[in-house]
Amino acid sequence: MSQQKIRIAIDCMGGDVGLPVTVPAALLFAKQFPDVRCLLVGDAQAIAQALRAHGSIDASWYEILHASEVVTMADSVEVALRRKKDSSMRVAAQAVKDGVADACVSAGNTGAWMAITRYVLKTLDGIDRPAIATSIPNQKGGATTMLDLGANVDCTAEHLLQFAIMGSALAGIVDRIERPTVGLLNIGEELIKGNETVKQAAELLRNSGLNFYGNVEGDDICKGTVNVVVCDGFVGNVVLKSMEGLAKMIANMMRDEFTRDALSMAAGLVAKPILNRFRDRVDNRRHNGAALLGLRGIVIKSHGSADAYAFGYALQRARGAVQNGLLEGTTRAIDHLRASLREAALQENDSKPQSESGS
Amino acid sequence: MSQQKIRIAIDCMGGDVGLPVTVPAALLFAKQFPDVRCLLVGDAQAIAQALRAHGSIDASWYEILHASEVVTMADSVEVALRRKKDSSMRVAAQAVKDGVADACVSAGNTGAWMAITRYVLKTLDGIDRPAIATSIPNQKGGATTMLDLGANVDCTAEHLLQFAIMGSALAGIVDRIERPTVGLLNIGEELIKGNETVKQAAELLRNSGLNFYGNVEGDDICKGTVNVVVCDGFVGNVVLKSMEGLAKMIANMMRDEFTRDALSMAAGLVAKPILNRFRDRVDNRRHNGAALLGLRGIVIKSHGSADAYAFGYALQRARGAVQNGLLEGTTRAIDHLRASLREAALQENDSKPQSESGS
Repeated sequence: MSQQKIRIAIDCMGGDVGLPVTVPAALLFAKQFPDVRCLLVGDAQAIAQALRAHGSIDASWYEILHASEVVTMADSVEVALRRKKDSSMRVAAQAVKDGVADACVSAGNTGAWMAITRYVLKTLDGIDRPAIATSIPNQKGGATTMLDLGANVDCTAEHLLQFAIMGSALAGIVDRIERPTVGLLNIGEELIKGNETVKQAAELLRNSGLNFYGNVEGDDICKGTVNVVVCDGFVGNVVLKSMEGLAKMIANMMRDEFTRDALSMAAGLVAKPILNRFRDRVDNRRHNGAALLGLRGIVIKSHGSADAYAFGYALQRARGAVQNGLLEGTTRAIDHLRASLREAALQENDSKPQSESGS
Repeated sequence: MSQQKIRIAIDCMGGDVGLPVTVPAALLFAKQFPDVRCLLVGDAQAIAQALRAHGSIDASWYEILHASEVVTMADSVEVALRRKKDSSMRVAAQAVKDGVADACVSAGNTGAWMAITRYVLKTLDGIDRPAIATSIPNQKGGATTMLDLGANVDCTAEHLLQFAIMGSALAGIVDRIERPTVGLLNIGEELIKGNETVKQAAELLRNSGLNFYGNVEGDDICKGTVNVVVCDGFVGNVVLKSMEGLAKMIANMMRDEFTRDALSMAAGLVAKPILNRFRDRVDNRRHNGAALLGLRGIVIKSHGSADAYAFGYALQRARGAVQNGLLEGTTRAIDHLRASLREAALQENDSKPQSESGS
């Protein structure tokens, strides 16, 4: 029975808060989805205590995997990887590697989580570097998949192509979009169009067989012009954080205005149901959970500051990825593209159709 | 009398709309600020007609400078610069060059406007490349100056240092901030910190004598962590447009929610004054008008899609820059920094304190 369940390894120690967020989130998640089994990774005693505190009596939904160490937000990648070999992150990733879990989730130190999962799981054939992808709600009522969000600072055109392949597979499989459109993030038409890497990437994308839309600009992310927006990790990270900052500022300003005086507060009461509906629509906690793509296993990164509600969405994302066969689908997409590139190379006698692969 | 007035050369033909936006905006601007004199640049007949249509009888506030050509949004920099030598953009820039105007403003093709003003006015000593700077409202109730927003796609560390000097001068002079804090846009602490150029720029900034805060992340723009945020033009352009896109989406969603049904509309009526106050606070039209810094003259770029209300703010920005002595202040700041860098170089016997200057 447990065999057929979707098994998620959860780093219970990670994130700004840790156990008081991860354990209740896991508890609720398991209640909502009886088809999952949670592997709670971390200090066994502390986890057991947190479970008791949250009144979990039924033990069928979880299993504790003990890990004696914790990677902190301040730890360097070096320390996380070489010195803390029994960290909750490491044990969670190893559970996927060993086939004990179908996916792993952490809200901890992003750099460490990337390094550890990459070291333990390795990259897929044809992928040089994993990328971080997430969904951003768009005007069309759907979500735009965007990558890379910070795994890769200096990217080549080939890396951007690989991101496009992975992002396309993600949108296709998880959002069930047939031949997702892919846009390359660039600057205004009237400016000198983008840097050299982006220009080369556009060329590669045009010949990739992907459903390449062409260049898109910053405002196309929320417009929902394309299903997948590709950029390097520096740009993606800065854009995502800028948007988060703006959303927070707007929310605060609105609260300010509705609490400014008695009359405003009365109006706020009247408008409350509408304001709540609005808040729910823009609430980015429901979009928590970025996928680390390109690894031989399903790896999800939750926002470090996620509360239990948001962390629950990251867990759901892991479940969805397993259920929809993200790993197999991505592998298939990459293999398919590599084969067609090889074929094209043979036909055109072009000697550099794809960068060298391997992790 | 006209001698003492602030003279603004306005490209009346530029922008998505052109005359129907620029002429009424200029008219209102001159009414609001009797200390300005507008040089209306473009097709003389068409401008005169637009003036009549808007009921301008008093001629003391303006003067028409005829230009026989118009740079379109589709024109390449090449065409704008070499083929259309009597464009309204060119004539407006030339007016500043000739000392006939104190500043020039256009809502037209950004790439062309940059190329033309740079060609006509040249860069200041010590500045390799002009940069585009604008103000973004922040949570602290002030505004964050951000640059570059698209003038420079591939930047060296020295360019980023120059942007910091110019942005610092702008914030100091126009926003009257003493020793503005400068932040370098970068990615998360826990990720591999930024690319090589950004790392080198941080080093230069630390030794620049500017009030360098250190690295900032995307969400610090709206938080108002620093007065000036520096980044390359690719990142800046994409970030600004992404934020514009998000703001628009949020505004649309809010309108949706308040017009969904009769009850929501009623609540919207009650909440209208508060919603209006909120809208005014986030209205980015009031922040229209980016400065092209580093040129031997004051040059302002308005959003192409600006309406008369927004274009008026770009005109006000030009007036403010003249009034506050932006050009002299920027020149002084650059000279000061170059002198101190030279001194430091002599002392440390370091051979490369500053990149070669000149345009």
